[in-house]
Amino acid sequence: MEETLEFAKRVHAGKPQLPLALRLIQNTGVRKRHIVQPIEKTLQHPGFEERNRIYEVESKKRCPEVIEGALANASLSAQDIDAIIYVSCTGFLMPSLTAWLINTMGFRSNTRQIPIAQLGCAAGGAAINRAHDFCTAYPGSNVLIVSCELCSLCYQPEDDGVGSLLSDGLFGDAVAAAVVRGSGGTGVALERNASYLIPHTEEWISYAVRDTGFHFQLDRRVPGTMEPLAPVLRDLATDHGWDIGNLDFYIIHAGGPRILGDLSKFLDVDLKMFRHSWATLTEYGNIASAVVLDALRRLFEEDAPMAGATGVIAGFGPGITAEMAVGTWTVESPEKVG
Amino acid sequence: MEETLEFAKRVHAGKPQLPLALRLIQNTGVRKRHIVQPIEKTLQHPGFEERNRIYEVESKKRCPEVIEGALANASLSAQDIDAIIYVSCTGFLMPSLTAWLINTMGFRSNTRQIPIAQLGCAAGGAAINRAHDFCTAYPGSNVLIVSCELCSLCYQPEDDGVGSLLSDGLFGDAVAAAVVRGSGGTGVALERNASYLIPHTEEWISYAVRDTGFHFQLDRRVPGTMEPLAPVLRDLATDHGWDIGNLDFYIIHAGGPRILGDLSKFLDVDLKMFRHSWATLTEYGNIASAVVLDALRRLFEEDAPMAGATGVIAGFGPGITAEMAVGTWTVESPEKVG
Repeated sequence: MEETLEFAKRVHAGKPQLPLALRLIQNTGVRKRHIVQPIEKTLQHPGFEERNRIYEVESKKRCPEVIEGALANASLSAQDIDAIIYVSCTGFLMPSLTAWLINTMGFRSNTRQIPIAQLGCAAGGAAINRAHDFCTAYPGSNVLIVSCELCSLCYQPEDDGVGSLLSDGLFGDAVAAAVVRGSGGTGVALERNASYLIPHTEEWISYAVRDTGFHFQLDRRVPGTMEPLAPVLRDLATDHGWDIGNLDFYIIHAGGPRILGDLSKFLDVDLKMFRHSWATLTEYGNIASAVVLDALRRLFEEDAPMAGATGVIAGFGPGITAEMAVGTWTVESPEKVG
Repeated sequence: MEETLEFAKRVHAGKPQLPLALRLIQNTGVRKRHIVQPIEKTLQHPGFEERNRIYEVESKKRCPEVIEGALANASLSAQDIDAIIYVSCTGFLMPSLTAWLINTMGFRSNTRQIPIAQLGCAAGGAAINRAHDFCTAYPGSNVLIVSCELCSLCYQPEDDGVGSLLSDGLFGDAVAAAVVRGSGGTGVALERNASYLIPHTEEWISYAVRDTGFHFQLDRRVPGTMEPLAPVLRDLATDHGWDIGNLDFYIIHAGGPRILGDLSKFLDVDLKMFRHSWATLTEYGNIASAVVLDALRRLFEEDAPMAGATGVIAGFGPGITAEMAVGTWTVESPEKVG
């Protein structure tokens, strides 16, 4: 945080929008972020082609280990996977990285490839929901989710609007992976999912696609979107016979501090219930589609609920799109293991 | 075709690779193509930003009417649609066009958005298969497929390898849409689908992502890929209890003439059985993910099979990925209509 504020003060010295931007960055509560290149390289713009080449190199270097971890956690091998959902909005490869992963990591040649590049931060929730749908269509199948968000490769030195400066201080890089098993395993048994597009907000979060690559554009109205989304989350829980204000765990996209603060207010949920999302934001920054996967990891590792605990997972992103799911914590019964 | 050959001769005069490229273009059999801009504008490169802006304008101008047609053909309204699968590899928007379509065409706010940009020509087959999966997971739901391929916006004047020159003479622009109904309707009742990645062919069809946008790269080995894919198609039919050589209709991605010729040979199927795919290639060129949807349109309009007819749909694209489905022609029984 200190380095970010120092840097912003130095590079944008004297600009009238700077004080507001500094205040907004401080309010994010982000203490630490991780970036794939040294800071000096990150701050240079070597061109869209070179940026995308770095994306390819870094994603190939970093995804396999994370995927191995996810497979091990699910007690599965690459051969057990029926579909790979790869979500990433910070680099563009065709073919998608899924082809390379299948070729180099031993996945079956008939693995379905579902690459999604255009759902931004909502893509983590979307990946979980499409994996749920796939396992509903094909009971007993297994879906690997990979999120590779190298947000620092979309840093645009020339962009100095308040939204851009805030984003420069907010986003971090991350690679995450998870497995949705069609049966067995320990974790959230997904039971119902839903999508929602807030009408006429297409321009609130968007990319301007330029010769210099993707330019992230953030509207000042975005932090206020929990007011229209809270009732949608409430309805999802109600349709499932649950009370949104009284669940056991909440895995929420921590786009920024106001998202969590407002949801706490509108859903009448203690802010402490968002502690995993908050920890992701504080320790990693907004890592786009990887936020919900990292918050889930914290739930697994630090705070695993009792069997039968109820919860919600929600990703938010451009559209403005919400991708939401409810499910019950399930523990593999020991006699079934092995 | 004549204009294309004239143009290639003029612009690339004297280059040693020209005679081969001209021969390959002639062999495609493409007689006519459609492009979204006048030819003079198409041949200029105004920069990636401007190209992508044109993509946005043209896709918004051209998709709605095609979608209205698909909904009318399916006897459904926008409100009946549960998911939109939007496939396009020739422009990049975030949010995806799905958000704009939902906002402007009256789709429900809870419509699932499934944008896929990185499966290239295989995305038509992939869209059909993911729609099938969705309807399997949620019986009675309806999925809209939209394919918007403005290939002429990826024309790169500087690229003059044989693969690039051939591509310049092969690809055409198109917008297509289709509805997969979870129940009822007339058309192919999808029964089984499969994906296949030919090992270690990632680099055979790819985009180089540069400051000037997407540069299509085509390897000379691509036309030979039906030899490894024919057995995969055969297995899909066999797994379904059918004989791949003895189906009633074949909707095949017409990437080029050799694809169809080789499949005819390896599957022991009369070339006439590929007449719809061939007509798409001849009259529109290779329209990427829209090929299978246009070939299906021809089957509907020119040649509707009898109820119970069996068939296969197959898209091929980067990966090298095949997305394949088998199904039975079904006719809406009159007492169910209305």
